[in-house]
Amino acid sequence: MYYRLLLDFNTLENGLIALTPEQSHYLKKVVRLKSHDHFIALNGQGQAWLAEIIDNSAHLLEAINETTELPVQVNLMVAIPKNGFDDIVRAATELGVYRIIPLLTERGLVNPSPQKIDRWRKIAREAVEQSERQIIPIIEEPQPFLAILKRGANPQTTCYIGVTRRTVAPLLSQLQTSTEITMAIGPEGGWTETEIEQAIAADFVPVSLGKRILRTITAPLVALAIINAYLDS
Amino acid sequence: MYYRLLLDFNTLENGLIALTPEQSHYLKKVVRLKSHDHFIALNGQGQAWLAEIIDNSAHLLEAINETTELPVQVNLMVAIPKNGFDDIVRAATELGVYRIIPLLTERGLVNPSPQKIDRWRKIAREAVEQSERQIIPIIEEPQPFLAILKRGANPQTTCYIGVTRRTVAPLLSQLQTSTEITMAIGPEGGWTETEIEQAIAADFVPVSLGKRILRTITAPLVALAIINAYLDS
Repeated sequence: MYYRLLLDFNTLENGLIALTPEQSHYLKKVVRLKSHDHFIALNGQGQAWLAEIIDNSAHLLEAINETTELPVQVNLMVAIPKNGFDDIVRAATELGVYRIIPLLTERGLVNPSPQKIDRWRKIAREAVEQSERQIIPIIEEPQPFLAILKRGANPQTTCYIGVTRRTVAPLLSQLQTSTEITMAIGPEGGWTETEIEQAIAADFVPVSLGKRILRTITAPLVALAIINAYLDS
Repeated sequence: MYYRLLLDFNTLENGLIALTPEQSHYLKKVVRLKSHDHFIALNGQGQAWLAEIIDNSAHLLEAINETTELPVQVNLMVAIPKNGFDDIVRAATELGVYRIIPLLTERGLVNPSPQKIDRWRKIAREAVEQSERQIIPIIEEPQPFLAILKRGANPQTTCYIGVTRRTVAPLLSQLQTSTEITMAIGPEGGWTETEIEQAIAADFVPVSLGKRILRTITAPLVALAIINAYLDS
Protein backbone atom coordinates (compact mmCIF):
# COMPACT_ATOMS: atom_id res chain seq x y z
CA MET A 1 0.00 0.00 0.00
CA TYR A 2 1.38 3.36 -1.04
CA TYR A 3 1.35 6.39 1.18
CA ARG A 4 -1.23 8.96 0.00
CA LEU A 5 -0.77 12.71 0.02
CA LEU A 6 -2.76 15.73 -1.12
CA LEU A 7 -0.49 18.06 -3.13
CA ASP A 8 -0.74 21.63 -4.37
CA PHE A 9 -1.20 21.13 -8.13
CA ASN A 10 -0.85 24.89 -8.73
CA THR A 11 2.90 24.34 -8.50
CA LEU A 12 2.90 21.66 -11.25
CA GLU A 13 5.67 22.32 -13.82
CA ASN A 14 7.31 19.77 -16.13
CA GLY A 15 5.60 16.95 -14.28
CA LEU A 16 7.02 18.11 -10.95
CA ILE A 17 5.07 19.41 -7.96
CA ALA A 18 6.88 21.21 -5.15
CA LEU A 19 6.43 19.62 -1.73
CA THR A 20 5.98 21.92 1.25
CA PRO A 21 8.77 21.66 3.85
CA GLU A 22 6.31 19.78 6.12
CA GLN A 23 5.41 17.30 3.38
CA SER A 24 9.03 16.78 2.44
CA HIS A 25 10.01 16.21 6.07
CA TYR A 26 7.07 13.83 6.59
CA LEU A 27 7.73 11.70 3.52
CA LYS A 28 11.49 11.45 4.15
CA LYS A 29 11.71 11.26 7.94
CA VAL A 30 8.40 9.75 9.05
CA VAL A 31 7.25 7.59 6.13
CA ARG A 32 10.99 7.08 5.34
CA LEU A 33 10.75 7.26 1.56
CA LYS A 34 14.05 7.43 -0.27
CA SER A 35 14.72 9.17 -3.59
CA HIS A 36 12.57 7.66 -6.42
CA ASP A 37 10.35 5.79 -3.93
CA HIS A 38 6.70 5.80 -4.94
CA PHE A 39 3.59 7.26 -3.32
CA ILE A 40 0.14 8.36 -4.46
CA ALA A 41 -0.39 12.05 -5.19
CA LEU A 42 -3.95 13.40 -4.92
CA ASN A 43 -5.29 16.68 -6.24
CA GLY A 44 -8.31 16.54 -3.93
CA GLN A 45 -10.70 16.94 -6.84
CA GLY A 46 -11.00 13.32 -7.83
CA GLN A 47 -7.72 12.45 -9.58
CA ALA A 48 -4.82 10.36 -8.32
CA TRP A 49 -1.32 9.79 -9.71
CA LEU A 50 1.45 7.36 -8.98
CA ALA A 51 4.36 9.68 -8.08
CA GLU A 52 8.00 9.36 -7.10
CA ILE A 53 9.87 11.60 -4.70
CA ILE A 54 12.85 13.48 -6.20
CA ASP A 55 14.59 15.94 -3.88
CA ASN A 56 11.80 18.14 -2.54
CA SER A 57 9.39 17.47 -5.39
CA ALA A 58 6.86 14.89 -6.44
CA HIS A 59 7.38 13.61 -10.00
CA LEU A 60 4.06 12.45 -11.46
CA LEU A 61 4.51 9.10 -13.21
CA GLU A 62 1.04 8.05 -14.33
CA ALA A 63 -2.60 8.74 -13.62
CA ILE A 64 -4.32 6.08 -11.53
CA ASN A 65 -7.87 5.16 -12.30
CA GLU A 66 -9.32 4.62 -8.86
CA THR A 67 -12.46 5.78 -7.22
CA THR A 68 -13.72 5.20 -3.73
CA GLU A 69 -16.15 8.11 -4.00
CA LEU A 70 -19.89 7.70 -3.60
CA PRO A 71 -21.86 7.72 -6.89
CA VAL A 72 -23.93 10.76 -5.81
CA GLN A 73 -23.18 13.92 -3.84
CA VAL A 74 -24.12 13.53 -0.19
CA ASN A 75 -24.43 16.74 1.82
CA LEU A 76 -24.55 16.70 5.60
CA MET A 77 -26.18 19.56 7.49
CA VAL A 78 -25.49 19.17 11.19
CA ALA A 79 -26.04 21.32 14.25
CA ILE A 80 -22.74 22.23 15.89
CA PRO A 81 -22.51 20.51 19.30
CA LYS A 82 -20.52 22.06 22.17
CA ASN A 83 -17.92 19.33 21.72
CA GLY A 84 -17.22 16.69 19.14
CA PHE A 85 -17.55 18.44 15.76
CA ASP A 86 -13.97 17.38 14.98
CA ASP A 87 -15.07 13.75 15.28
CA ILE A 88 -18.11 14.37 13.07
CA VAL A 89 -15.94 15.90 10.33
CA ARG A 90 -13.41 13.06 10.49
CA ALA A 91 -15.96 10.23 10.39
CA ALA A 92 -18.24 11.97 7.83
CA THR A 93 -15.21 12.32 5.55
CA GLU A 94 -14.45 8.61 5.94
CA LEU A 95 -18.08 7.98 4.99
CA GLY A 96 -17.71 9.82 1.69
CA VAL A 97 -19.53 13.08 2.45
CA TYR A 98 -19.29 15.69 -0.34
CA ARG A 99 -20.18 18.78 1.67
CA ILE A 100 -20.64 19.54 5.38
CA ILE A 101 -22.80 22.51 6.37
CA PRO A 102 -22.42 23.32 10.09
CA LEU A 103 -25.82 24.52 11.30
CA LEU A 104 -26.88 27.16 13.77
CA THR A 105 -30.21 25.95 15.15
CA GLU A 106 -32.72 27.39 17.60
CA ARG A 107 -31.57 25.06 20.41
CA GLY A 108 -27.92 24.83 19.36
CA LEU A 109 -26.45 28.28 18.91
CA VAL A 110 -22.77 27.42 18.97
CA ASN A 111 -21.00 29.92 16.71
CA PRO A 112 -17.48 28.65 16.05
CA SER A 113 -14.42 30.83 15.54
CA PRO A 114 -12.76 31.03 12.09
CA GLN A 115 -9.85 29.04 13.62
CA LYS A 116 -12.25 26.19 14.37
CA ILE A 117 -13.46 26.14 10.77
CA ASP A 118 -9.86 26.07 9.49
CA ARG A 119 -9.22 23.21 11.88
CA TRP A 120 -12.21 21.24 10.51
CA ARG A 121 -10.91 21.74 6.95
CA LYS A 122 -7.49 20.42 8.01
CA ILE A 123 -9.11 17.37 9.65
CA ALA A 124 -11.10 16.71 6.46
CA ARG A 125 -7.87 16.76 4.38
CA GLU A 126 -6.17 14.30 6.73
CA ALA A 127 -9.20 12.02 6.67
CA VAL A 128 -9.22 12.05 2.83
CA GLU A 129 -5.64 10.73 2.82
CA GLN A 130 -6.31 8.13 5.50
CA SER A 131 -9.62 6.83 4.19
CA GLU A 132 -8.24 6.60 0.62
CA ARG A 133 -10.67 9.08 -0.90
CA GLN A 134 -9.95 11.28 -3.92
CA ILE A 135 -12.10 14.33 -3.15
CA ILE A 136 -11.76 16.78 -0.26
CA PRO A 137 -15.19 17.49 1.21
CA ILE A 138 -16.28 21.13 1.29
CA ILE A 139 -16.73 22.47 4.81
CA GLU A 140 -19.01 25.47 4.50
CA GLU A 141 -19.28 28.45 6.83
CA PRO A 142 -21.85 27.87 9.59
CA GLN A 143 -25.36 28.96 8.59
CA PRO A 144 -28.70 29.28 10.39
CA PHE A 145 -30.92 26.34 9.42
CA LEU A 146 -34.02 28.54 9.01
CA ALA A 147 -32.14 30.87 6.63
CA ILE A 148 -31.14 27.89 4.45
CA LEU A 149 -34.76 26.74 4.36
CA LYS A 150 -35.95 30.22 3.32
CA ARG A 151 -33.54 30.27 0.38
CA GLY A 152 -34.95 26.90 -0.70
CA ALA A 153 -33.01 23.80 -1.65
CA ASN A 154 -31.62 22.83 -5.02
CA PRO A 155 -34.56 21.02 -6.69
CA GLN A 156 -32.26 18.17 -7.78
CA THR A 157 -31.52 17.35 -4.15
CA THR A 158 -33.58 14.92 -2.11
CA CYS A 159 -33.54 16.26 1.44
CA TYR A 160 -34.09 14.36 4.70
CA ILE A 161 -34.40 15.59 8.26
CA GLY A 162 -33.78 13.23 11.18
CA VAL A 163 -36.46 13.55 13.87
CA THR A 164 -37.05 11.76 17.19
CA ARG A 165 -40.15 10.96 19.25
CA ARG A 166 -42.42 11.08 16.20
CA THR A 167 -43.87 8.30 14.14
CA VAL A 168 -42.03 8.63 10.86
CA ALA A 169 -40.58 6.07 8.45
CA PRO A 170 -36.99 4.84 8.83
CA LEU A 171 -34.39 6.59 6.63
CA LEU A 172 -33.53 3.40 4.69
CA SER A 173 -37.14 2.94 3.56
CA GLN A 174 -37.33 6.53 2.27
CA LEU A 175 -34.10 6.70 0.26
CA GLN A 176 -34.55 6.90 -3.48
CA THR A 177 -32.39 7.31 -6.55
CA SER A 178 -31.34 10.94 -6.72
CA THR A 179 -28.45 12.94 -8.12
CA GLU A 180 -27.87 14.55 -4.74
CA ILE A 181 -28.86 13.68 -1.16
CA THR A 182 -28.96 16.12 1.75
CA MET A 183 -29.32 14.93 5.35
CA ALA A 184 -30.07 17.34 8.22
CA ILE A 185 -29.26 16.38 11.84
CA GLY A 186 -30.40 18.54 14.78
CA PRO A 187 -28.81 19.64 18.05
CA GLU A 188 -28.70 17.73 21.37
CA GLY A 189 -31.86 19.51 22.53
CA GLY A 190 -33.67 18.55 19.34
CA TRP A 191 -35.20 20.65 16.57
CA THR A 192 -37.94 23.13 17.48
CA GLU A 193 -41.43 22.57 16.06
CA THR A 194 -40.87 25.61 13.83
CA GLU A 195 -37.72 24.11 12.37
CA ILE A 196 -39.39 20.77 11.64
CA GLU A 197 -42.48 22.40 10.11
CA GLN A 198 -40.47 24.76 7.93
CA ALA A 199 -38.19 21.91 6.82
CA ILE A 200 -41.20 19.80 5.82
CA ALA A 201 -42.64 22.81 3.99
CA ALA A 202 -39.30 23.06 2.14
CA ASP A 203 -39.67 19.40 1.00
CA PHE A 204 -37.42 17.78 3.59
CA VAL A 205 -38.65 14.23 4.27
CA PRO A 206 -38.79 13.55 8.03
CA VAL A 207 -37.13 10.23 8.87
CA SER A 208 -36.24 8.12 11.87
CA LEU A 209 -32.74 6.83 12.63
CA GLY A 210 -34.08 4.22 15.07
CA LYS A 211 -35.99 3.98 18.33
CA ARG A 212 -33.12 4.88 20.60
CA ILE A 213 -31.98 8.44 21.29
CA LEU A 214 -28.66 9.14 19.55
CA ARG A 215 -26.21 11.86 20.48
CA THR A 216 -25.56 14.60 17.89
CA ILE A 217 -22.13 13.05 17.43
CA THR A 218 -23.52 9.58 16.63
CA ALA A 219 -26.60 10.53 14.57
CA PRO A 220 -24.81 11.91 11.46
CA LEU A 221 -22.60 8.81 11.23
CA VAL A 222 -25.62 6.53 11.47
CA ALA A 223 -27.40 8.48 8.73
CA LEU A 224 -24.31 8.45 6.47
CA ALA A 225 -23.73 4.73 7.12
CA ILE A 226 -27.30 4.00 5.99
CA ILE A 227 -26.96 6.24 2.90
CA ASN A 228 -23.63 4.52 2.06
CA ALA A 229 -25.22 1.07 2.39
CA TYR A 230 -28.15 2.14 0.19
CA LEU A 231 -25.86 3.56 -2.52
CA ASP A 232 -23.62 0.46 -2.39
CA SER A 233 -26.46 -1.99 -2.93
CA MET B 1 -39.58 13.63 29.40
CA TYR B 2 -38.74 11.90 32.64
CA TYR B 3 -35.22 11.43 33.91
CA ARG B 4 -34.10 7.80 33.59
CA LEU B 5 -32.02 5.90 36.14
CA LEU B 6 -30.75 2.34 36.54
CA LEU B 7 -31.49 1.15 40.11
CA ASP B 8 -30.34 -1.79 42.23
CA PHE B 9 -33.48 -3.96 42.34
CA ASN B 10 -31.85 -6.27 44.92
CA THR B 11 -32.81 -3.65 47.53
CA LEU B 12 -36.53 -3.72 46.56
CA GLU B 13 -38.77 -3.99 49.63
CA ASN B 14 -42.42 -2.92 49.94
CA GLY B 15 -42.23 -1.19 46.59
CA LEU B 16 -39.24 0.90 47.68
CA ILE B 17 -35.71 0.76 46.27
CA ALA B 18 -32.85 2.40 48.15
CA LEU B 19 -30.98 5.04 46.17
CA THR B 20 -27.20 5.19 46.51
CA PRO B 21 -25.91 8.44 48.04
CA GLU B 22 -24.68 9.44 44.55
CA GLN B 23 -28.07 8.76 42.95
CA SER B 24 -29.91 10.60 45.71
CA HIS B 25 -27.59 13.60 45.38
CA TYR B 26 -27.89 13.57 41.60
CA LEU B 27 -31.70 13.41 41.51
CA LYS B 28 -32.16 16.09 44.20
CA LYS B 29 -29.33 18.51 43.49
CA VAL B 30 -28.62 18.13 39.77
CA VAL B 31 -31.92 17.02 38.21
CA ARG B 32 -33.64 19.00 41.03
CA LEU B 33 -36.46 16.56 41.73
CA LYS B 34 -38.54 17.30 44.83
CA SER B 35 -40.28 14.74 47.04
CA HIS B 36 -42.90 12.75 45.06
CA ASP B 37 -41.55 13.98 41.71
CA HIS B 38 -41.55 11.30 39.05
CA PHE B 39 -38.77 9.61 37.12
CA ILE B 40 -38.28 6.33 35.27
CA ALA B 41 -36.59 3.46 37.13
CA LEU B 42 -34.84 0.80 35.05
CA ASN B 43 -33.70 -2.65 36.17
CA GLY B 44 -31.29 -2.96 33.23
CA GLN B 45 -32.84 -6.27 32.18
CA GLY B 46 -35.66 -4.94 30.06
CA GLN B 47 -38.24 -3.54 32.50
CA ALA B 48 -39.09 0.07 33.32
CA TRP B 49 -41.28 1.61 36.02
CA LEU B 50 -42.70 5.03 36.67
CA ALA B 51 -41.28 5.88 40.09
CA GLU B 52 -41.47 8.74 42.59
CA ILE B 53 -38.69 9.91 44.85
CA ILE B 54 -39.41 9.68 48.60
CA ASP B 55 -36.56 10.60 50.93
CA ASN B 56 -33.62 8.50 49.71
CA SER B 57 -35.75 5.86 48.02
CA ALA B 58 -37.52 5.27 44.74
CA HIS B 59 -41.16 4.25 45.14
CA LEU B 60 -42.27 2.14 42.17
CA LEU B 61 -45.68 3.34 40.95
CA GLU B 62 -46.42 1.29 37.86
CA ALA B 63 -44.68 -0.81 35.23
CA ILE B 64 -44.20 0.96 31.91
CA ASN B 65 -44.57 -0.98 28.72
CA GLU B 66 -41.83 0.47 26.55
CA THR B 67 -39.19 -1.04 24.42
CA THR B 68 -36.52 0.59 22.36
CA GLU B 69 -34.53 -2.63 22.19
CA LEU B 70 -33.65 -4.32 18.91
CA PRO B 71 -35.79 -7.37 18.05
CA VAL B 72 -32.75 -9.68 17.96
CA GLN B 73 -29.52 -9.93 19.96
CA VAL B 74 -26.68 -8.15 18.23
CA ASN B 75 -23.17 -9.02 19.41
CA LEU B 76 -20.18 -6.87 18.50
CA MET B 77 -16.70 -8.37 18.47
CA VAL B 78 -14.18 -5.60 18.02
CA ALA B 79 -10.40 -5.40 18.19
CA ILE B 80 -9.28 -3.06 20.97
CA PRO B 81 -7.64 0.04 19.44
CA LYS B 82 -4.91 1.95 21.30
CA ASN B 83 -7.39 4.78 21.88
CA GLY B 84 -11.09 5.20 21.45
CA PHE B 85 -12.68 2.05 22.89
CA ASP B 86 -14.68 4.26 25.29
CA ASP B 87 -16.31 5.90 22.25
CA ILE B 88 -17.03 2.52 20.67
CA VAL B 89 -18.76 1.29 23.85
CA ARG B 90 -20.83 4.48 24.16
CA ALA B 91 -21.99 4.58 20.55
CA ALA B 92 -22.52 0.80 20.28
CA THR B 93 -24.77 1.01 23.36
CA GLU B 94 -26.77 3.81 21.72
CA LEU B 95 -27.11 1.53 18.71
CA GLY B 96 -28.72 -1.23 20.74
CA VAL B 97 -25.84 -3.71 21.02
CA TYR B 98 -26.58 -6.70 23.31
CA ARG B 99 -23.02 -7.83 23.98
CA ILE B 100 -19.57 -6.40 23.28
CA ILE B 101 -16.60 -8.77 23.07
CA PRO B 102 -13.28 -6.87 23.07
CA LEU B 103 -10.93 -8.81 20.83
CA LEU B 104 -7.23 -9.52 21.01
CA THR B 105 -6.14 -9.95 17.39
CA GLU B 106 -2.85 -10.81 15.73
CA ARG B 107 -2.22 -7.19 14.69
CA GLY B 108 -3.95 -5.54 17.66
CA LEU B 109 -2.61 -6.95 20.90
CA VAL B 110 -3.85 -4.28 23.31
CA ASN B 111 -4.58 -6.03 26.62
CA PRO B 112 -6.57 -3.63 28.80
CA SER B 113 -6.39 -3.41 32.59
CA PRO B 114 -9.34 -4.58 34.74
CA GLN B 115 -9.90 -0.87 35.55
CA LYS B 116 -10.46 -0.17 31.86
CA ILE B 117 -13.06 -2.93 31.62
CA ASP B 118 -14.87 -1.55 34.69
CA ARG B 119 -14.79 1.84 33.04
CA TRP B 120 -16.35 0.46 29.83
CA ARG B 121 -19.14 -1.15 31.88
CA LYS B 122 -19.82 2.20 33.59
CA ILE B 123 -19.93 3.99 30.23
CA ALA B 124 -22.40 1.39 28.94
CA ARG B 125 -24.71 2.00 31.95
CA GLU B 126 -24.65 5.76 31.38
CA ALA B 127 -25.35 5.30 27.67
CA VAL B 128 -28.35 3.03 28.49
CA GLU B 129 -29.90 5.85 30.54
CA GLN B 130 -29.15 8.54 27.96
CA SER B 131 -30.22 6.61 24.88
CA GLU B 132 -33.47 5.46 26.57
CA ARG B 133 -32.71 1.76 26.41
CA GLN B 134 -33.95 -0.86 28.87
CA ILE B 135 -31.13 -3.40 28.79
CA ILE B 136 -27.50 -2.94 29.86
CA PRO B 137 -25.20 -4.48 27.27
CA ILE B 138 -22.81 -7.15 28.49
CA ILE B 139 -19.17 -6.15 28.18
CA GLU B 140 -17.18 -9.38 28.19
CA GLU B 141 -13.58 -9.89 29.20
CA PRO B 142 -11.18 -9.45 26.24
CA GLN B 143 -10.60 -12.67 24.32
CA PRO B 144 -8.28 -13.75 21.50
CA PHE B 145 -10.27 -13.91 18.26
CA LEU B 146 -8.66 -17.19 17.18
CA ALA B 147 -9.60 -18.81 20.50
CA ILE B 148 -13.25 -17.78 20.03
CA LEU B 149 -13.20 -19.26 16.52
CA LYS B 150 -11.77 -22.54 17.82
CA ARG B 151 -14.58 -22.89 20.38
CA GLY B 152 -17.08 -22.42 17.54
CA ALA B 153 -20.03 -20.04 17.45
CA ASN B 154 -23.54 -20.61 18.69
CA PRO B 155 -25.27 -22.25 15.68
CA GLN B 156 -28.26 -19.89 16.08
CA THR B 157 -26.02 -16.90 15.43
CA THR B 158 -25.37 -15.51 11.98
CA CYS B 159 -21.81 -14.20 12.04
CA TYR B 160 -20.23 -11.54 9.82
CA ILE B 161 -16.65 -10.37 9.55
CA GLY B 162 -15.85 -6.96 8.06
CA VAL B 163 -12.97 -7.13 5.57
CA THR B 164 -11.27 -4.52 3.38
CA ARG B 165 -9.43 -4.65 0.03
CA ARG B 166 -11.28 -7.81 -1.05
CA THR B 167 -14.20 -8.22 -3.38
CA VAL B 168 -16.99 -9.25 -1.04
CA ALA B 169 -20.68 -8.33 -0.88
CA PRO B 170 -21.86 -5.33 1.17
CA LEU B 171 -23.12 -6.12 4.69
CA LEU B 172 -26.68 -4.90 3.95
CA SER B 173 -27.07 -7.37 1.07
CA GLN B 174 -25.97 -10.29 3.25
CA LEU B 175 -28.15 -9.69 6.32
CA GLN B 176 -30.91 -12.23 6.85
CA THR B 177 -33.52 -13.00 9.46
CA SER B 178 -31.80 -14.59 12.42
CA THR B 179 -32.34 -14.87 16.15
CA GLU B 180 -28.88 -13.52 16.81
CA ILE B 181 -26.35 -11.52 14.79
CA THR B 182 -22.62 -11.30 15.51
CA MET B 183 -20.41 -8.73 13.78
CA ALA B 184 -16.59 -8.89 13.98
CA ILE B 185 -14.46 -5.79 13.31
CA GLY B 186 -10.67 -5.98 13.04
CA PRO B 187 -7.78 -3.81 14.23
CA GLU B 188 -6.29 -0.73 12.52
CA GLY B 189 -3.67 -2.90 10.82
CA GLY B 190 -6.37 -5.25 9.51
CA TRP B 191 -7.01 -8.94 10.10
CA THR B 192 -4.27 -11.42 9.17
CA GLU B 193 -4.97 -13.93 6.40
CA THR B 194 -5.09 -16.66 9.07
CA GLU B 195 -7.79 -14.82 11.00
CA ILE B 196 -9.93 -14.27 7.91
CA GLU B 197 -9.53 -17.88 6.73
CA GLN B 198 -10.32 -19.34 10.13
CA ALA B 199 -13.32 -17.03 10.51
CA ILE B 200 -14.70 -18.11 7.13
CA ALA B 201 -14.08 -21.75 8.12
CA ALA B 202 -16.11 -21.03 11.28
CA ASP B 203 -19.05 -19.81 9.12
CA PHE B 204 -18.41 -16.07 9.41
CA VAL B 205 -19.67 -14.34 6.25
CA PRO B 206 -17.06 -11.86 4.95
CA VAL B 207 -18.69 -8.50 4.16
CA SER B 208 -17.71 -5.02 3.02
CA LEU B 209 -18.61 -1.82 4.88
CA GLY B 210 -17.92 0.31 1.80
CA LYS B 211 -15.06 1.23 -0.51
CA ARG B 212 -13.36 3.69 1.80
CA ILE B 213 -11.01 2.69 4.62
CA LEU B 214 -12.71 3.21 7.99
CA ARG B 215 -10.91 3.59 11.30
CA THR B 216 -11.51 0.87 13.93
CA ILE B 217 -13.51 3.49 15.83
CA THR B 218 -15.85 4.21 12.90
CA ALA B 219 -16.25 0.70 11.46
CA PRO B 220 -18.30 -0.86 14.31
CA LEU B 221 -20.74 2.06 14.30
CA VAL B 222 -21.21 1.79 10.56
CA ALA B 223 -21.86 -1.96 10.87
CA LEU B 224 -24.32 -1.46 13.75
CA ALA B 225 -26.10 1.38 11.93
CA ILE B 226 -26.64 -0.90 8.91
CA ILE B 227 -27.86 -3.78 11.13
CA ASN B 228 -30.22 -1.36 12.93
CA ALA B 229 -31.61 -0.09 9.63
CA TYR B 230 -32.11 -3.67 8.39
CA LEU B 231 -33.90 -4.75 11.59
CA ASP B 232 -36.07 -1.59 11.53
CA SER B 233 -37.30 -2.12 7.99
